[in-house]
Amino acid sequence: MGECKHKHQLPVGFKASGVRCGIKLKGADLALIYSEDDCNAAGVFTTNIFKAASVIINQKKIVSGKARAVVANSGIANACTGVQGIKDAERACELVAELAGISSETVYNASTGVIGQLLPMEKIEAGIRDAWESLSADGIDAAEQAIMTTDTVPKISSYEVEYAGKKVKLTGIVKGSGMICPNMATMLCFIMTDARINSALLQKMLVAGVETSFNSLTVDGDMSTNDQALVFANGRSGVEITPGSEIAELFELGLSYILMDLAKQMARDGEGATKYVEVRVINAETYADAKSAAMTISNSPLVKTAIFGEDPNWGRVLCAAGRSQAKVVAEKTSLYFGDVKIVENGEPLQVDAKEARKPMLEKELVITVDLGLGNAQATAFTCDFSYDYIKINAEYHT
Amino acid sequence: MGECKHKHQLPVGFKASGVRCGIKLKGADLALIYSEDDCNAAGVFTTNIFKAASVIINQKKIVSGKARAVVANSGIANACTGVQGIKDAERACELVAELAGISSETVYNASTGVIGQLLPMEKIEAGIRDAWESLSADGIDAAEQAIMTTDTVPKISSYEVEYAGKKVKLTGIVKGSGMICPNMATMLCFIMTDARINSALLQKMLVAGVETSFNSLTVDGDMSTNDQALVFANGRSGVEITPGSEIAELFELGLSYILMDLAKQMARDGEGATKYVEVRVINAETYADAKSAAMTISNSPLVKTAIFGEDPNWGRVLCAAGRSQAKVVAEKTSLYFGDVKIVENGEPLQVDAKEARKPMLEKELVITVDLGLGNAQATAFTCDFSYDYIKINAEYHT
Repeated sequence: MGECKHKHQLPVGFKASGVRCGIKLKGADLALIYSEDDCNAAGVFTTNIFKAASVIINQKKIVSGKARAVVANSGIANACTGVQGIKDAERACELVAELAGISSETVYNASTGVIGQLLPMEKIEAGIRDAWESLSADGIDAAEQAIMTTDTVPKISSYEVEYAGKKVKLTGIVKGSGMICPNMATMLCFIMTDARINSALLQKMLVAGVETSFNSLTVDGDMSTNDQALVFANGRSGVEITPGSEIAELFELGLSYILMDLAKQMARDGEGATKYVEVRVINAETYADAKSAAMTISNSPLVKTAIFGEDPNWGRVLCAAGRSQAKVVAEKTSLYFGDVKIVENGEPLQVDAKEARKPMLEKELVITVDLGLGNAQATAFTCDFSYDYIKINAEYHT
Repeated sequence: MGECKHKHQLPVGFKASGVRCGIKLKGADLALIYSEDDCNAAGVFTTNIFKAASVIINQKKIVSGKARAVVANSGIANACTGVQGIKDAERACELVAELAGISSETVYNASTGVIGQLLPMEKIEAGIRDAWESLSADGIDAAEQAIMTTDTVPKISSYEVEYAGKKVKLTGIVKGSGMICPNMATMLCFIMTDARINSALLQKMLVAGVETSFNSLTVDGDMSTNDQALVFANGRSGVEITPGSEIAELFELGLSYILMDLAKQMARDGEGATKYVEVRVINAETYADAKSAAMTISNSPLVKTAIFGEDPNWGRVLCAAGRSQAKVVAEKTSLYFGDVKIVENGEPLQVDAKEARKPMLEKELVITVDLGLGNAQATAFTCDFSYDYIKINAEYHT
């Protein structure tokens, strides 16, 4: 097996930049990522009926499996903006294409921010020209800064696969801390790799990796109109990723690592979060059961406020499991906070309250629910629900 | 058609009381409702897998369709308490039966409070004796006080059906302000009537009425282990409610009124609520679509925090509708805050921000989503999401 190293750097042949065009009150708000070579590409998108203009146009483009660039803005979501919104999203792509001398069919668009407002195109166009001039091999941090909204920390992840003297790099960025929920792609996620891989295989790996990462993440159970995750592969490493090969297995592990790492970074930076929480449901009859129970527990406001209050209110956890779609048998269900077993086969153990509370006092909490019915398992990633979630979302005015 | 009057009083033949037995830190915590006559009864219960002992024993008893009394405590839920919990719930019923000289099969039990703790039976038994001595025809307010937990106001509703010189009375109480969610019966609801009606017809009317009232109510999307609604009919009015008759229609309207009134009282008193909200979804293809969209909007933390912040962030409303199970076509969807039309056929209207915000400043808000696809409709009842919801639930320690 190969060796793995971590580095935050774009694979060779990719450039990025982040500039201020003036949509947000302050800070950078326009990002550009550009590949010198033609890339094979894969993408997953929100399943919300109300799709942003960027999602609508990207879903058409991704069918070709080709990509050269993505231009993204923060501050305005360009969602529920009708025909003009589509025109604006397309114009942003066209301008990048003009500057780069490439087809606008290979330029993707992404937006995040307030719904229902049109993009200020004069600012966007000036921003794109500025971003084009600013492109650099070291620009991934600047690009990440430019897509952040209520995020409090940038979220970048890199991975290097080394196998029989060959190296493949993957670097991804993501933004998102609210409107994070099940059955979506993600907020905005862009992953660049120098692997040589066809878009069908890349798409398959992306979909599989998203299921256990972004689609197992919840901050507030809400799903955005703008969510998307794109992967661009420029082939520069010269390493061919063929289906079924050992290098393909290692590459898929690497992609999964990036997706999972970024998902965990999002949970840690959930709006108002004071604690990072993993809900592990084990010994379920099916994966679907395990996932449903884990997500229902992770979405429960009562569970999340109890965690914020550092209160081992385990009844709320069982209660959420019991109303999920999962097959649950009360008499077979056991529950742990951290390593402390609280309930065994449906019967509460006489655990000292101080002992039960100890794992709640940490910054990271693992809740394990053992359904005792089979051997499937799933993990959901979430955070607690604090005063600051209310503050951020009551005061994030349109 | 008959005339309807409102009064908060038990129908003749019913008595109630509420006393302190010492489970909660302060205040009354044990309620008893007793009928001098045999009653026909109907009941709906939580669908949570983890059912409280009281729910488990009541579901067996309700099959007979007979009832004489219900004994309820607050402070401890007696849920996830295994074999001992069942024994304790049965013992409470048996003691009432002994004191009243009736069969314990006609005595129902209910509990609300912390999950996973056993009932202090010495206190419960002393409380039951005390409550038995305190029974009175005027005792409904005391009974309501004794089942309240985080409720800030008592919730009682009465209705009188008058038809061709005949009168039938209905009086109901309910408790609940958190753990209120879809697909459940309710928290605790007890309705007494002097109608003469068989239990099968009563059950049918209760199930129908609960669908558009308690099951259309959400405070936080969580479902309790203890939810139940019971209706006792003692027949004292001498008025026979026969299927299909005009009086049956009036009686069902009366029962629906009580259920809806109590549901709205619960939404108004939602944990930490500062605003009462009705989400009306109209012109849906099916009732199921309308209900799904209305409930998903009502459960969205982002919608609820925007309402708390008095922010007309309508994108969040469409976003929630778009991720619901409902059939939604973006281009056919229109949206109103109060009487102000914000979106027409998927296109945002150029509404002045001050104008759009005006309905948000009131204590009561109606959000209407017109799906433009058919003629089915549904209304969900909810409230906003404030700092106090977090405070109440982070500090409601076990």
